[in-house]
Amino acid sequence: MISCPLPFNSYPSVQLAHGGGGKLSQQLVQDIFLPFLGNEYLSQLHDGAIVPFGNERIAFTTDSYVINPIFFPGGDIGALAVNGTVNDLAMCGATPRFLSAGFIIEEGFPMEDLQRIAASMQEAAALARVVVVTGDTKVVDRGKADKIFITTAGIGEIADGVSISPMLASPGDVIILSGRIAQHGIAIMSVREGLRFETDIVSDCAALNGLTSELLAFGESIHVLRDPTRGGIASALNEIAAAAQVGIWIEEEAIPVADEVRGACEILGFDPLYVANEGKLIAFVAPDDAAAILEVMQQHPLGKDAVAIGQVVADHAGTVIMKSRVGGKRVVDMLSGEQLPRIC
Amino acid sequence: MISCPLPFNSYPSVQLAHGGGGKLSQQLVQDIFLPFLGNEYLSQLHDGAIVPFGNERIAFTTDSYVINPIFFPGGDIGALAVNGTVNDLAMCGATPRFLSAGFIIEEGFPMEDLQRIAASMQEAAALARVVVVTGDTKVVDRGKADKIFITTAGIGEIADGVSISPMLASPGDVIILSGRIAQHGIAIMSVREGLRFETDIVSDCAALNGLTSELLAFGESIHVLRDPTRGGIASALNEIAAAAQVGIWIEEEAIPVADEVRGACEILGFDPLYVANEGKLIAFVAPDDAAAILEVMQQHPLGKDAVAIGQVVADHAGTVIMKSRVGGKRVVDMLSGEQLPRIC
Repeated sequence: MISCPLPFNSYPSVQLAHGGGGKLSQQLVQDIFLPFLGNEYLSQLHDGAIVPFGNERIAFTTDSYVINPIFFPGGDIGALAVNGTVNDLAMCGATPRFLSAGFIIEEGFPMEDLQRIAASMQEAAALARVVVVTGDTKVVDRGKADKIFITTAGIGEIADGVSISPMLASPGDVIILSGRIAQHGIAIMSVREGLRFETDIVSDCAALNGLTSELLAFGESIHVLRDPTRGGIASALNEIAAAAQVGIWIEEEAIPVADEVRGACEILGFDPLYVANEGKLIAFVAPDDAAAILEVMQQHPLGKDAVAIGQVVADHAGTVIMKSRVGGKRVVDMLSGEQLPRIC
Repeated sequence: MISCPLPFNSYPSVQLAHGGGGKLSQQLVQDIFLPFLGNEYLSQLHDGAIVPFGNERIAFTTDSYVINPIFFPGGDIGALAVNGTVNDLAMCGATPRFLSAGFIIEEGFPMEDLQRIAASMQEAAALARVVVVTGDTKVVDRGKADKIFITTAGIGEIADGVSISPMLASPGDVIILSGRIAQHGIAIMSVREGLRFETDIVSDCAALNGLTSELLAFGESIHVLRDPTRGGIASALNEIAAAAQVGIWIEEEAIPVADEVRGACEILGFDPLYVANEGKLIAFVAPDDAAAILEVMQQHPLGKDAVAIGQVVADHAGTVIMKSRVGGKRVVDMLSGEQLPRIC
């Protein structure tokens, strides 16, 4: 697996970067959670677990949402909490079915905002064709939480024959990205206090299960699906390279970034490869079907800008290498520190 | 359903009591969540949802834990998060199988405490025979959360023929309580800053699925199962009376309260009927099997103090009436305000 930048003892307490989706997040899981809670499911570190249930296979996943601000261009914490969990299920090759929602609310939170969030969750759930079937609400005293945190969990159905896993990335696989990157992260940063700048950039927050259901029609040709959220596509690709112990080769020129987003990244000093997405996916697919898969994706509204950005190679196992725009090549590593706290 | 003490407009913002499990919690759900998110599952307001899945029925539930302090006599937030969700599944008549865990951690939280919590979760999961299969960690900046919040969700299997629901309470049902009440709430209050007093009271935090699995052997004679957590047995009984539109009659003298707990309640000014439990259950059972069920419960370590505390009646539908120790009778209402914030 990924090497740890510093031994556990170097961090006597939890840092913001431990929640950033990069190296430190992995280290936290490896050093603290897996030694105690590790098991055949959890240890796969997939977007969700695939568990047997009677005669069915169920995908089961959870995510906590602590995004700041809670309302942002293109979405809000409610829509994000629904879509994020729907997407994690979709990336397991599952059809998302049922969601739970746990609310932790700060005393004094406006009832009107809570209504707005509930309405937004309902809209997102209806669009994604899932149902929020169970929930819980806790209220903490003023100053003991920041407005509202939502934790969704979800269960989905996995059809017979579907087998999607980061471990299935194989040399020769074509890597397809469903669209322009870094929109979510930059949309959030653009409205954060102290960082406001003029932009029309909106979050790409969306449910991807419609798109994945079309991909699943290609059966065993779909090897890996991953939504590159916190940590961006760089972290997602590194996790897959590590899980499957394969090399990944991508071409910078092929990776679509909207001009506005690229400009904002330059102003803020961010590399778009590391910036969060909430409505994009990466698919690792068998080369023979790659062209057909790309075509299907491009016909879907959420995949119209889909492109092949690289391939899986037998060399440099565990490492992502990018051919840069100017022709050189460089290692694209996991993020070490924290780039954008509370981005989801 | 329960009448709302004040119209929605009276509360422009969320109050602590909205998370207390009493009237205001119900009102929040009725006024804010159900109008948007309501559906055949969520609207049942059971401890969990029972959803169809292929040929199986799945119980699915979630709870967020914000307890303060995070380590307390008899448990910690980790064990509580596992046992609480296990119990919610058990109260649906399910065999708990898989859990998810979402962690929201305040920057600076000691790594050692996180390890201790992970170890405690693992111990609780092993005892309850469930597996934590998926998780997520978010870190928020210092001062934006209080140490650590954990949201667990769980899925469980419901055997053919099992049908447990608060709506199934029927006149004639005997109401059995599995043991002494109010231990969890008082254990927490005893160690809270400013309220420390000399006591050996420990939380009853425990997984009840071993006990419920023995009850389920009685098939259709088990009508309702409920773990009386926040809001205590008073709130649990009121919810059942409202859901089934039946009257509930209980006898104060029959309700077991340890002397120490009773003493602490008197000092603190709490009514034990409203104080949280985390390892007790209430069962509504068919009268013909009540004696046999009671005997089975008493042979289980978590049910050794089980007693019948009352019965379901056809009169005063929706209302809980208690024959008091001195012989009078009084309505036991839902809690209006907040008695013990952040008790779970």
